[in-house]
Amino acid sequence: MREVFTKELEALADGLVDLGNLAVDAIKQSNKALATNDLQLAEQVITDDAQVNANQVEIDRRAVELLALQAPVAADLRIVVAALKMSVALERMGDLARHISAQVRIRYPEHAIPEAFTRIFERMGSVAERIGESMVELLSTPGLAAVPMISALDEELDALHLEVFTVIASLNADQITPSQIADVTLLARYYERFGDQAVNVAQRVDYMLSGNLDSDASSAE
Amino acid sequence: MREVFTKELEALADGLVDLGNLAVDAIKQSNKALATNDLQLAEQVITDDAQVNANQVEIDRRAVELLALQAPVAADLRIVVAALKMSVALERMGDLARHISAQVRIRYPEHAIPEAFTRIFERMGSVAERIGESMVELLSTPGLAAVPMISALDEELDALHLEVFTVIASLNADQITPSQIADVTLLARYYERFGDQAVNVAQRVDYMLSGNLDSDASSAE
Repeated sequence: MREVFTKELEALADGLVDLGNLAVDAIKQSNKALATNDLQLAEQVITDDAQVNANQVEIDRRAVELLALQAPVAADLRIVVAALKMSVALERMGDLARHISAQVRIRYPEHAIPEAFTRIFERMGSVAERIGESMVELLSTPGLAAVPMISALDEELDALHLEVFTVIASLNADQITPSQIADVTLLARYYERFGDQAVNVAQRVDYMLSGNLDSDASSAE
Repeated sequence: MREVFTKELEALADGLVDLGNLAVDAIKQSNKALATNDLQLAEQVITDDAQVNANQVEIDRRAVELLALQAPVAADLRIVVAALKMSVALERMGDLARHISAQVRIRYPEHAIPEAFTRIFERMGSVAERIGESMVELLSTPGLAAVPMISALDEELDALHLEVFTVIASLNADQITPSQIADVTLLARYYERFGDQAVNVAQRVDYMLSGNLDSDASSAE
């Protein structure tokens, strides 16, 4: 019985890694679609999000089944509860990547971001990929050492997010249209929230390992 | 034993209603702070958010305790799992209300929204309050009848969100500054997400009552 349980917990953990990988794939493709104004790629990300959602539902189904059939306690229970929480954050990361691609699609054939913002969004995209990859690594091999690194990357993303507003405030009306300002504001927000959700996941891994459930674990930002 | 369990499930449900009420209070106060440019009230919302976070942690602690000590199954298990999911959404609604107040504080003594947007944000605020109140009612007296009403209010909020972008696109550069455009874009987004989270909660109540876990339940938007 115990052996079956371990196998099922492992399947749950594998499901989280898979879901994390889907979110990372989505952000990578959205970054590329945004940088190269690739409508087809943007549409692919939007379509593929259905798989992210399906994976979340499957993780939750497995978690509930585990709770019902095995009644885990202590560390095993913490893994299942953490999975139920993390699946929300991972699915949301997929949504945020999809939102970025949706902006590309809405503005096509124009570029979704004006030239003055190309460089800063390249940097946001690159940090978002790194934070996503670190998160998947942490999910694959839980260890608390990765948590501070993920927090540091999130701070970098927050700083870039603020930088976007500094650039917005510095522009003259003939350099950017009102709609473009709204677009870059939303895009920057999507990247910033992507980072927040990765931090949420990292803090859940922390909880899983330590049982420490502080109030920050629920809402990194 | 069974009686104790029921009592603890009731306490869990009460905790969700309390958390929902805190989120509704927060959005009401943020609406007022935004409409009247009330710095003190905005700061109050920001301070009070710590209580929202603390309540979430307490709900999660109780849910985990229930799972560990009572090993619920069937409908009882669904309530506990739904509580773990709903606490995330409710806490997030508190965050979004806090973000609105934070915008008031950042721009003070200037108004956080230019006059051209006063009316539309009044309407968004009013719909957000109604969706929050409907959600608390649903949490207090679960019944599927309230779910379509909450969805309808969310659609109203989505329409107002789009309307904000139409107004932005219609303005000339001398009517609004780039920073003001960024501000109203974010504020509209916060209200829209507040509605999405209320729909998430409603769909979780649906799951709790019916056991139906479709992929939409995880990410209304």
